[in-house]
Amino acid sequence: NRIGLDEAIFCAGKSVEQIGAILELAKARGAGLLLTRLTVEKLEGLSAANRDAIDYCAVSRTGFFGPLKPIEQRGGIAIVAAGTSDAGVAREAERTLRHAGVGATVITDVGVAGLWRLTERLEEIRTHPIVIAAAGMDAALASVLGGLVSSTIICVPTSVGYGAAEAGRTALNAMLASCAPGLVVCNIDNGYGAASAALRILSSYERLRRSGV
Amino acid sequence: NRIGLDEAIFCAGKSVEQIGAILELAKARGAGLLLTRLTVEKLEGLSAANRDAIDYCAVSRTGFFGPLKPIEQRGGIAIVAAGTSDAGVAREAERTLRHAGVGATVITDVGVAGLWRLTERLEEIRTHPIVIAAAGMDAALASVLGGLVSSTIICVPTSVGYGAAEAGRTALNAMLASCAPGLVVCNIDNGYGAASAALRILSSYERLRRSGV
Amino acid sequence: NRIGLDEAIFCAGKSVEQIGAILELAKARGAGLLLTRLTVEKLEGLSAANRDAIDYCAVSRTGFFGPLKPIEQRGGIAIVAAGTSDAGVAREAERTLRHAGVGATVITDVGVAGLWRLTERLEEIRTHPIVIAAAGMDAALASVLGGLVSSTIICVPTSVGYGAAEAGRTALNAMLASCAPGLVVCNIDNGYGAASAALRILSSYERLRRSGV
Amino acid sequence: NRIGLDEAIFCAGKSVEQIGAILELAKARGAGLLLTRLTVEKLEGLSAANRDAIDYCAVSRTGFFGPLKPIEQRGGIAIVAAGTSDAGVAREAERTLRHAGVGATVITDVGVAGLWRLTERLEEIRTHPIVIAAAGMDAALASVLGGLVSSTIICVPTSVGYGAAEAGRTALNAMLASCAPGLVVCNIDNGYGAASAALRILSSYERLRRSGV
Amino acid sequence: NRIGLDEAIFCAGKSVEQIGAILELAKARGAGLLLTRLTVEKLEGLSAANRDAIDYCAVSRTGFFGPLKPIEQRGGIAIVAAGTSDAGVAREAERTLRHAGVGATVITDVGVAGLWRLTERLEEIRTHPIVIAAAGMDAALASVLGGLVSSTIICVPTSVGYGAAEAGRTALNAMLASCAPGLVVCNIDNGYGAASAALRILSSYERLRRSGV
Amino acid sequence: NRIGLDEAIFCAGKSVEQIGAILELAKARGAGLLLTRLTVEKLEGLSAANRDAIDYCAVSRTGFFGPLKPIEQRGGIAIVAAGTSDAGVAREAERTLRHAGVGATVITDVGVAGLWRLTERLEEIRTHPIVIAAAGMDAALASVLGGLVSSTIICVPTSVGYGAAEAGRTALNAMLASCAPGLVVCNIDNGYGAASAALRILSSYERLRRSGV
Amino acid sequence: NRIGLDEAIFCAGKSVEQIGAILELAKARGAGLLLTRLTVEKLEGLSAANRDAIDYCAVSRTGFFGPLKPIEQRGGIAIVAAGTSDAGVAREAERTLRHAGVGATVITDVGVAGLWRLTERLEEIRTHPIVIAAAGMDAALASVLGGLVSSTIICVPTSVGYGAAEAGRTALNAMLASCAPGLVVCNIDNGYGAASAALRILSSYERLRRSGV
Amino acid sequence: NRIGLDEAIFCAGKSVEQIGAILELAKARGAGLLLTRLTVEKLEGLSAANRDAIDYCAVSRTGFFGPLKPIEQRGGIAIVAAGTSDAGVAREAERTLRHAGVGATVITDVGVAGLWRLTERLEEIRTHPIVIAAAGMDAALASVLGGLVSSTIICVPTSVGYGAAEAGRTALNAMLASCAPGLVVCNIDNGYGAASAALRILSSYERLRRSGV
Ligand SMILES: Nc1ncnc2c1ncn2[C@@H]1O[C@H](COP(=O)(O)O)[C@@H](O)[C@H]1O
Ligand SMILES: Nc1ncnc2c1ncn2[C@@H]1O[C@H](COP(=O)(O)O)[C@@H](O)[C@H]1O
Ligand SMILES: Nc1ncnc2c1ncn2[C@@H]1O[C@H](COP(=O)(O)O)[C@@H](O)[C@H]1O
Ligand SMILES: Nc1ncnc2c1ncn2[C@@H]1O[C@H](COP(=O)(O)O)[C@@H](O)[C@H]1O
Ligand SMILES: [Mg+2]
Ligand SMILES: [Mg+2]
Ligand SMILES: [Mg+2]
Ligand SMILES: [Mg+2]
Ligand SMILES: [Mg+2]
Ligand SMILES: [Mg+2]
Ligand SMILES: [Mg+2]
Ligand SMILES: [Mg+2]
Repeated sequence: NRIGLDEAIFCAGKSVEQIGAILELAKARGAGLLLTRLTVEKLEGLSAANRDAIDYCAVSRTGFFGPLKPIEQRGGIAIVAAGTSDAGVAREAERTLRHAGVGATVITDVGVAGLWRLTERLEEIRTHPIVIAAAGMDAALASVLGGLVSSTIICVPTSVGYGAAEAGRTALNAMLASCAPGLVVCNIDNGYGAASAALRILSSYERLRRSGV
Repeated sequence: NRIGLDEAIFCAGKSVEQIGAILELAKARGAGLLLTRLTVEKLEGLSAANRDAIDYCAVSRTGFFGPLKPIEQRGGIAIVAAGTSDAGVAREAERTLRHAGVGATVITDVGVAGLWRLTERLEEIRTHPIVIAAAGMDAALASVLGGLVSSTIICVPTSVGYGAAEAGRTALNAMLASCAPGLVVCNIDNGYGAASAALRILSSYERLRRSGV
Repeated sequence: NRIGLDEAIFCAGKSVEQIGAILELAKARGAGLLLTRLTVEKLEGLSAANRDAIDYCAVSRTGFFGPLKPIEQRGGIAIVAAGTSDAGVAREAERTLRHAGVGATVITDVGVAGLWRLTERLEEIRTHPIVIAAAGMDAALASVLGGLVSSTIICVPTSVGYGAAEAGRTALNAMLASCAPGLVVCNIDNGYGAASAALRILSSYERLRRSGV
Repeated sequence: NRIGLDEAIFCAGKSVEQIGAILELAKARGAGLLLTRLTVEKLEGLSAANRDAIDYCAVSRTGFFGPLKPIEQRGGIAIVAAGTSDAGVAREAERTLRHAGVGATVITDVGVAGLWRLTERLEEIRTHPIVIAAAGMDAALASVLGGLVSSTIICVPTSVGYGAAEAGRTALNAMLASCAPGLVVCNIDNGYGAASAALRILSSYERLRRSGV
Repeated sequence: NRIGLDEAIFCAGKSVEQIGAILELAKARGAGLLLTRLTVEKLEGLSAANRDAIDYCAVSRTGFFGPLKPIEQRGGIAIVAAGTSDAGVAREAERTLRHAGVGATVITDVGVAGLWRLTERLEEIRTHPIVIAAAGMDAALASVLGGLVSSTIICVPTSVGYGAAEAGRTALNAMLASCAPGLVVCNIDNGYGAASAALRILSSYERLRRSGV
Repeated sequence: NRIGLDEAIFCAGKSVEQIGAILELAKARGAGLLLTRLTVEKLEGLSAANRDAIDYCAVSRTGFFGPLKPIEQRGGIAIVAAGTSDAGVAREAERTLRHAGVGATVITDVGVAGLWRLTERLEEIRTHPIVIAAAGMDAALASVLGGLVSSTIICVPTSVGYGAAEAGRTALNAMLASCAPGLVVCNIDNGYGAASAALRILSSYERLRRSGV
Repeated sequence: NRIGLDEAIFCAGKSVEQIGAILELAKARGAGLLLTRLTVEKLEGLSAANRDAIDYCAVSRTGFFGPLKPIEQRGGIAIVAAGTSDAGVAREAERTLRHAGVGATVITDVGVAGLWRLTERLEEIRTHPIVIAAAGMDAALASVLGGLVSSTIICVPTSVGYGAAEAGRTALNAMLASCAPGLVVCNIDNGYGAASAALRILSSYERLRRSGV
Repeated sequence: NRIGLDEAIFCAGKSVEQIGAILELAKARGAGLLLTRLTVEKLEGLSAANRDAIDYCAVSRTGFFGPLKPIEQRGGIAIVAAGTSDAGVAREAERTLRHAGVGATVITDVGVAGLWRLTERLEEIRTHPIVIAAAGMDAALASVLGGLVSSTIICVPTSVGYGAAEAGRTALNAMLASCAPGLVVCNIDNGYGAASAALRILSSYERLRRSGV
């Protein structure tokens, strides 16, 4: 595309045949690809050659196909997740960043039900200008971070929980209606989107730097 | 009624005439009454005699009609509110307790967007076996309290906020789906209900004490 | 955690591997654990040693792992369920209490469609200072209990029913909007949460008693 | 119309001018009319002649225009309402029946929060083959009646309540998902509809009786 | 139960073991039973003896267990269904009536998209004092019947359709908000409930007849 | 704009000052304008000169400002409305067409609760290749027309009704999920949109004619 | 039916047996049929003779049974789809048109996230008097087309996406509330409905042309 | 607060008395304040001294109280609004930035219904590393910008529109589910929040720059 973000293939709505065809086209172009929402079943349905060309992560259901950029940037982004069930979303964000050559710090299991665990990591979190916060259910982690950390905070609600958690809708609304000012929010379970937003911000920094603003 | 809670008149769906008639009946019986959701307009529509017999609070839109019990119990209940806009609901809870002869500690403006304000009051809150927590928007206050305080926590979502706050539905859902265990929840803006629950618990204590459990 | 409640592992969002790892850690610490939402499939996926160390209940999908406290307290809590379909939720509450060393009285199949069945058990229910009420569909049981019993009433809506039952949302809303005062409510199907709330109330009482307030 | 029910004018969406025109047409035809949802403001906007030809009831916002049938039938229908706030809906049903020449027994303030009040009236209610039950909030009255009374029960949810009462949606859903079998339900606040259903049942019976089935 | 309706077992939330136990109890009492929402899988899980004692209908997923009453009444009830997909719900109603000894006329495939098919059957439908109307999607059949037929009309919305049909919610709302007066409505897909309501009305007729109203 | 439709000013979100400024600009350009959702209050707030230059219709809250095209086309479009409360929406459609120089046939009060009224007008409706159908509540009119008339049918749900009518959402969903094939739907109360769609179709006809398809 | 559209069998709610029976009836009548929502599993469950008589398309899950009309008309309709995941819906529309003897131009993968791809095809799209636009998630394609193309635009929201896409509800609402005037909308994923609407327009045009209006 | 953002007073839930008290406190501290959601009515209720100390903007309902920072930064932020009805939200964002000493470029009336208006301003928009996009109804502007501009894009859905616009919920969902990657979203009508997010990004950049990362 024309906005500087890597191409990503959202596999959820595609058949194994369609994914295979896209991979062949990419191979022909010599291009690498990020694959998201790729289930193990679909992975196993691909040809052996394509399967072998994919660096797969089962937790986030992402794959790197073909050549991978080296890490070119580090230290700018922390990914903070409330619980172990939010790990898949956090890892999708981490892998999207990694595919773009950006390393991230991942901090998990710091949900506010055990606030002291978050407090212990607060100084470390604060050193990152960009924080991606993934949380489900009440998503209270986002508001607590928003009140304590002056960094840019990109929130990702997760579909963890049941009943009144409403498949992530409650976390989404709580993040949008947060009492902490200046939080921004992505779609439910959209680790890819949060990482893409972080990449936009990093490139905005680059432009700010160049323009000397 | 037969469950030991004072009679309360919910004025929202009643005309001035209906409220007036209820007050006359109570006067005839020599009974005191708690009036909730009584607007200033309705108050002013009552006869001068009835109006004068009402100890009115505009913030909570509650009134004490007729004789009021002395305070018989103190120190058991803290009412904690996130923002100044939650004050009306907190006050409705406080006044319902007061009408039943129970004094409460009220702590306001401790929303998690400024977590240090809450932290400063935490030891004080912990001394109360029962905590009523009123918060709107993301209702993160409830989860933070739930993780830090072992007391019984009765949550009241408030309709403060707009858009994704969904008139209190988001706060309600966040409290129900809280990552902190053992929170219980009342209807949106229902300070009266939270206080009534606290009174049930105080009377359960009394029975526990008597039965020597 | 720091609020005096036993650690519980919510297995719904976790893989067999993750659950196995948590059990190993607990074993190493010599700690017992309550497992909730543990399906038979996941149970069978665990190592034979871990499986054998679990006292499993299929109705509530809960497991006690490792050493279990003796029952230390009885008579304070009744669990009342409307229909046989609510039994799983009632049992989750009972097992959570049992894990904490608290015995409960369980009374089932007293839904209001056959009010005389409830009436027959009313005196027995009233002897308990704390009542957990589990009901789905219209959840009318909660309101009837709320009007007849002065105990603390913790309501758990269940997802029993179809169509307008809206997967428990109708029961939840009916309990929140109940015409009976002072009911408190937990998330849909959250028997664990209702029991945790009851444990908070018992421990608050314990503190009160010890402090002699 | 061709189904034997009287013509009724739903005034909520009509201007004073439109209502006036309909009344003139009815007068010209010599026909009587039932007016529903007629506010005092609209009533006062009508010509003095039309206003005087209306027997108005402010509680139900209904009017009888022109000649009124005598009461031809009694004893078949009871209208049972949970609280005083449900009185307007109950009265709309009563007046619709009265306009059709049918007398009804009205029993109010028997909500289940005070179950003994309902129990005292149960025998009286049971003598009526058709019962209209109006209730808001949790609408538990409908389920309790449904389990205790074998009559035909027509439920009308009311918009009484706030927050989780969701403007009558919770009462509607609770009545639809009731644990008591064979309840039928009308739209929120639709006392007119419940009465019309009762009239259909009476007229079906009449046809049956005449045909000797 | 005490309201004169046969006992029905709702099998959806019950295990094969639970259903088997209920059948054994019924057998011991010599009682017949209506089973609803009984899948073929569950049926096949029962003991051969119990399976053989069940007269099963796969379209409606209902079973008659044990002795069946003869048909005692005919001609009072028509069941009218919009499309072939509504047949399961219509059959559940028919079988519930049959279990109670009541024969019904079933008329299907008369949805309003082909209004002439309905028109051809109109005279036949009109001969029945009670009409059960089952329809999904837009549920326009109910309104058309309501305007043309003076009988009692019990509506059952079905979950047929997709997207904006919202799993039956649209049909339910359309029936409740129908422009035709005096329709009454049951829960989505609740053929059992519609038949139970019809049985209540038949018994009301019986009482009306006896009381000579 | 560039798609051949007249400019229309949606006045609902605009202040009197903003509307006045737009009128001055139009006057300067010598252009005519269609004003929609213009309340009488806003009309009266305009300068006398602007007010006088507006041909206003209170029923539809529309205004023609400045020069008006003659009627250039007739006979192609029928606007059919279910009830008198739908008249405002029907008139908004009629006036939008009139502003574009297109005359329409308006047929009102043909809701399906009195199907014979619709049947009487059916032949007349069928002579129009394009039918705009406006209906609220259950919107059954749309499905009945869709099954009987082969013309293009543009549906406009209206917000007429209460409770389960859900401010037009039920009519909207019923039209979208209609059992009649090939209906198309506009936003709730959007008579302007339905007319604009009809104008697009007339211009498609023109192009079809010219291209000789 | 009587409105000139071919009969189509919606297979989603029908068993293999029911579909087989319908095919036999059609065969007996010598009629062709369009089958929609026919899964591969159901196709394979049909008799070999019936299966062989079906021209099946797996992408759209549609089948042509029996004799197929030749293409009689071309050039009038473009089907434009945002992404590859919308292809199934686009193909359902294309096949419905084909079954009626109408050829369409299909243009895919022109979602607005890569606006230049749409811009490149704009002139081609504009040559078609009727455009069917299929898009999911934000459905921005519909609004962009609506502002740039004066043709009749029939929108089909698709259920592509997750979380806030709400199974197509967001695309549906965005199309209904579009800032571009005169768009019309079909049910979610309803390619069949969009094609049927296009056929109504073509046949209305045909009548107009023949009548010489 | 401790995160570097200016204090803002959200006046919507506060009485004139409460706002007056907050202003007195600020005056005593010599602090400036941003007031949001301040209606003209409330402004006029303040004391003359306080009123005079407020630089008020009626379009955005914001006020600057007391000393105002000079503009210290320019050129980094563009605020792009779809229609004139979105102007209030855009202005709230602009004024929040201005209060923090940051100048912004405001570009309005570039909704996608007239895509050429947006295209003409695209190069100008691209020069800004941060873009705030405000749009209601379908919010298609956000997706179009997201596909064409590589800057950081902060989306603010507005409550402009009716019916299916669902008071901003449709715009919110469309922005969250956008087909363009890396968009981030704020609450409905929350211009203040979007500006606060932009300020977080600028201050994060500042920290990065200073730390030389
Ligand atoms: N996990 C994801 N969630 C949301 N959007 C994604 C995800 N992965 C990829 N995308 C977006 O979807 C586009 C690909 O869509 P498609 O053409 O259907 O494969 C990518 O360019 C991204 O903008
Ligand atoms: N299909 C059904 N839909 C709704 N309620 C039902 C259905 N079948 C049975 N019931 C009701 O559920 C009751 C039995 O519930 P249970 O005790 O859980 O078996 C019966 O007495 C009926 O009132
Ligand atoms: N009643 C209406 N409903 C929906 N859209 C309308 C209506 N009236 C005008 N519009 C549209 O709104 C545009 C004008 O919007 P605006 O620039 O805000 O005045 C017109 O060009 C139409 O596309
Ligand atoms: N227009 C607004 N929208 C959302 N949040 C706001 C707005 N204005 C102020 N706030 C937030 O509300 C806080 C003040 O809340 P309060 O203490 O109730 O006055 C501020 O510190 C901001 O975080
Ligand atoms: Mg955790
Ligand atoms: Mg505050
Ligand atoms: Mg039962
Ligand atoms: Mg009462
Ligand atoms: Mg059919
Ligand atoms: Mg009418
Ligand atoms: Mg794509
Ligand atoms: Mg505009």
